[in-house]
Amino acid sequence: MSDRPFRRAVATVCLSGTLEDKLGAAAAAGFDGIEVFEPDLVAAPWSPAELAARCADLGLSIDLYQPFRDLDSTDPARFARNLRRAERKFDVMEQLGTTTVLVCSSVAADAVADPDQLAGQLAAVAQRAGERGLRIAYEALAWGTHVSTWDRSWDAVRRADSPALGLCLDSFHVLSRGGDPAGFAAVPADKLFFLQLADAPQLQMDVLQWSRHHRLFPGQGAFDLAAFLDSVLAAGYTGPLSLEVFNDVYRQSDPARTAVDAMRSLLWLQEQLAARRGDPELAVAPPAPALTGWSFTELAVDGVSGPEVAAALAGMGFTHTGQHRSKPVQLWEQGRARVLLNASVVRPSATGVASVAALGLESADPPRSAQRAECLKAPVLPRTRGATEADLSAVAAPDGTQVFFTRTGPDGWPADFLPTGSPAGAGAGVTGVDHVGLTQPFDSFDEAALFYRAVLGLEPQAVGEFAAPFGLVRTRAVSDPARAVRLALSVSALRRGTWAPGVPDPQYVAFTSADVVATARAARAAGAPLLTIPGNYADDLDARYDLAPELLAAIRELGLLYDEDEHGRWLQLVTRVLGDRVFLVVVQRLGGYDGYGAADAPVRMAAHRRSRALATTD
Amino acid sequence: MSDRPFRRAVATVCLSGTLEDKLGAAAAAGFDGIEVFEPDLVAAPWSPAELAARCADLGLSIDLYQPFRDLDSTDPARFARNLRRAERKFDVMEQLGTTTVLVCSSVAADAVADPDQLAGQLAAVAQRAGERGLRIAYEALAWGTHVSTWDRSWDAVRRADSPALGLCLDSFHVLSRGGDPAGFAAVPADKLFFLQLADAPQLQMDVLQWSRHHRLFPGQGAFDLAAFLDSVLAAGYTGPLSLEVFNDVYRQSDPARTAVDAMRSLLWLQEQLAARRGDPELAVAPPAPALTGWSFTELAVDGVSGPEVAAALAGMGFTHTGQHRSKPVQLWEQGRARVLLNASVVRPSATGVASVAALGLESADPPRSAQRAECLKAPVLPRTRGATEADLSAVAAPDGTQVFFTRTGPDGWPADFLPTGSPAGAGAGVTGVDHVGLTQPFDSFDEAALFYRAVLGLEPQAVGEFAAPFGLVRTRAVSDPARAVRLALSVSALRRGTWAPGVPDPQYVAFTSADVVATARAARAAGAPLLTIPGNYADDLDARYDLAPELLAAIRELGLLYDEDEHGRWLQLVTRVLGDRVFLVVVQRLGGYDGYGAADAPVRMAAHRRSRALATTD
Repeated sequence: MSDRPFRRAVATVCLSGTLEDKLGAAAAAGFDGIEVFEPDLVAAPWSPAELAARCADLGLSIDLYQPFRDLDSTDPARFARNLRRAERKFDVMEQLGTTTVLVCSSVAADAVADPDQLAGQLAAVAQRAGERGLRIAYEALAWGTHVSTWDRSWDAVRRADSPALGLCLDSFHVLSRGGDPAGFAAVPADKLFFLQLADAPQLQMDVLQWSRHHRLFPGQGAFDLAAFLDSVLAAGYTGPLSLEVFNDVYRQSDPARTAVDAMRSLLWLQEQLAARRGDPELAVAPPAPALTGWSFTELAVDGVSGPEVAAALAGMGFTHTGQHRSKPVQLWEQGRARVLLNASVVRPSATGVASVAALGLESADPPRSAQRAECLKAPVLPRTRGATEADLSAVAAPDGTQVFFTRTGPDGWPADFLPTGSPAGAGAGVTGVDHVGLTQPFDSFDEAALFYRAVLGLEPQAVGEFAAPFGLVRTRAVSDPARAVRLALSVSALRRGTWAPGVPDPQYVAFTSADVVATARAARAAGAPLLTIPGNYADDLDARYDLAPELLAAIRELGLLYDEDEHGRWLQLVTRVLGDRVFLVVVQRLGGYDGYGAADAPVRMAAHRRSRALATTD
Repeated sequence: MSDRPFRRAVATVCLSGTLEDKLGAAAAAGFDGIEVFEPDLVAAPWSPAELAARCADLGLSIDLYQPFRDLDSTDPARFARNLRRAERKFDVMEQLGTTTVLVCSSVAADAVADPDQLAGQLAAVAQRAGERGLRIAYEALAWGTHVSTWDRSWDAVRRADSPALGLCLDSFHVLSRGGDPAGFAAVPADKLFFLQLADAPQLQMDVLQWSRHHRLFPGQGAFDLAAFLDSVLAAGYTGPLSLEVFNDVYRQSDPARTAVDAMRSLLWLQEQLAARRGDPELAVAPPAPALTGWSFTELAVDGVSGPEVAAALAGMGFTHTGQHRSKPVQLWEQGRARVLLNASVVRPSATGVASVAALGLESADPPRSAQRAECLKAPVLPRTRGATEADLSAVAAPDGTQVFFTRTGPDGWPADFLPTGSPAGAGAGVTGVDHVGLTQPFDSFDEAALFYRAVLGLEPQAVGEFAAPFGLVRTRAVSDPARAVRLALSVSALRRGTWAPGVPDPQYVAFTSADVVATARAARAAGAPLLTIPGNYADDLDARYDLAPELLAAIRELGLLYDEDEHGRWLQLVTRVLGDRVFLVVVQRLGGYDGYGAADAPVRMAAHRRSRALATTD
């Protein structure tokens, strides 16, 4: 296996900060080259020659330079000015030591419509470039005035027939217009000057706004980039794979982190290509071992939140079955659901906060899972940081949650725990774990989708959005095909206003039950801290659905939540917030319901806020 | 003058929080009624009857209820279920004590296309409503499957011919589709059941997304709502003016503040209507007295930042001409530019921060300016909080900046200052103030545009956006028609990432000069802390424009910034950041340039960041 069949580049516009920040981030993430975006260069303290030297020091080549727009013009005086501008920028290129300049199709009102006139102007610029040993990569912007599809750009290049003029293919511009990459086969390889890669979600919006604000790294959006790349390579392209992603979030988040995310996206894309071509030479990592379920969920607690969570677990039917041999970690069990309460995390003071610290995932091959994670640039954690002493490999997810790869058996992590003598009983009917819900940091929502996809082999599902009481929330679930491991990720669409007295960045563990109504009755009888759902909710269910009277009565009596999708139905029982941040959920999926109850999240959030306000004023 | 010719209502969806928060905010801002949005009711702890009682306690009527979508259907079984659902919601209305329910045109695939079938289904529902003393306001959603324009909704209502069925007109749905309000005249007054008002920016995007995320309160966007309202009233509408604004920011910001903003928008709209109709009975406040210029800009400083700013002012040619009689406030002058350095703000410790604390604006009638501000719900500040002792009225702008209404003369605020004996000389050629630049808090960017428009009579200009090194920045200037008072407002489009080591929420004062080159030379000779602009910037200017060689040389030598718009050109001189937040600018407008140099802001921001990094490592 080789991880360098392609040179990999990233456009400076993908990364936040000044050019100094961007170069450092690109080099640290292992990129071979960069595209220099003009505003970064204009604002930089280095002359072009100094920038070239700086890049050489960092082992980065300058693969493309993007100095301007709107070159062609029906106004001869303006075209003459544009030629002068081009010559000035060719001066800069000579200093930069780069040979390829990007020219986009014009978006101006004076753009040239006549194909031969356009080809003539491009040929005139290309001739000047060629005389200086430079070459022009011509790209169709999806919103170009006359040239808005890649085949129109190819028509112009073909007509111009200049050795210094070729094509730049950009996946966004091609795929956003529904272009067919199969057509690339008709382009001679020596006319494929450059390739820019970007993914994007499918959005119904103006293509310019879509492109400028919502591009994503490969694997984060909806485009079939493996097929696109395959077509470009099959046509004979041999240049770098270069990312050009305009994204509002990446423009403002830590560039070092974004650059790693970007590199991961190219590794993932290469792996997709390897699978598509059946070419093991293109493999970047061992395949992701199957994840077959949950071994444990670990909550970090302290002296205040620990007893609160323990009492809630007891009320929900869990039993404290084990105590760690050397650390203040409790094992609680019910059915195949296991929760670790870890009080060993040293904090300056007991703050009363509980949080999801780690996920234990059953892997068919834990060492290989860890090896893959490392190949895909996941931060591998020192082995001593887990709650257990068994030899476990763990990586940090983008939100900081530790992900352990485990095989639960007598020789595995449970051996670290001494039995308390209380065997797990039937409890309240909880049988296992359905999913874990994690609020993501604002800057890493899309990064997380790619992380779970590339590192763990979990597939991201569609992005959803709902109006929560304190602002819009975006959601995206990731899961294995068999739904043995599901994570429900969410993020505040604009960050939560500081005024809101709700629960910041809530997290939850959702257990399964074959009979949530029975579980709810048992939990209520045991004094579990169940959330109160207002009666209006059941009244509304009654108006919307034709529910059996007994079910509706149980929902009303027990404060359950109910939802339907095209596959089936589900019921949900929710506790109050524990340790200021975490709550427990029990769900029952009926008939293949595949969602996560997002429709009821606003009701749940309002109820959580209310229960906390009551607790404060009690 | 009467401020209550109309009942004013606000939809609960306009405000953030749970229903408890929303009711309190609407009542406190002086609204007469609310529209109850279903998700708020479903999540509320009160039964509908309890909600009605709570509203009555707060003096709020429930003017409209929005319980569902997609009523009509070509599927008889589904329509039967929808009728059942409607009956359940009529039960709720009886408890709420409200009589009007909103029914939107269906967006479902099974929506009824045939006009007579649609009218028949609406008539069937209306008959059931009418039998219970209720009525249905039918509204065309701009993205309805078959009914997407207001005249199609009117066609359905007319065909149905039911006394319990009328129209709901929504300004967004009408104006986003280019509908003509003149047509309302053909609708009998007794068929105009309800009016919903929302403004919006002109955006090129899917109308559903535009509506759900980007609506604004009247006066914040681009729609002509006064003409719209005039047409509705002329047609005989007598119900409440009700705001229905779906906006991502308002969904997450302090509802008490948003409700005041909402009320201000209706007061402003009423005033526009008064002007349109020439009807003094509709006036809500005395007209805004003309603002004729700047009397002072006050910077709050401390023991660390005060000397730093003072030295910079001296370097820029200002003279310390006055000292406040009783407070640690210095007056600095040059030409008609006056800066107050106020060290009287008590802080726990000297943090070295400087900030724009107050703007002194010359008003043709200061008491009337203050009276108007109060009528428009601006927070009037206690008179003792200003730096001066003269009897000045001040209000707080949305970002907390104090706005003083002044008349500068011997009997005015300058009398509070004892001359230092140093008369203001020619200095470096600064003649006055061009504008002040203020970064706005994330949640109050649109609020600020309406505040300056309604309270001060300054007109907002178009919203702009640029890619700054640390994320997108949105800009909007406000000014009087004569451009005597200009403010350049900006906001980070997604809030700045915490990683970025730039200047948080920068502010600046831009002075005028008739010869910025001469001012720059004088400032440099005097050791002013001028910002270093990289040579690449001048090289790029040379490529883009055909500048006179002497001008280009001066720009390069002195680190000036240059821009052009369709009216003219400008030159700009910028200092380094003072007191961690503030910088000084000198501009020269040539030939009617009307912008604020936004194109150069990324270069300036990168240079500011670099100068601070150098200062830290020195």
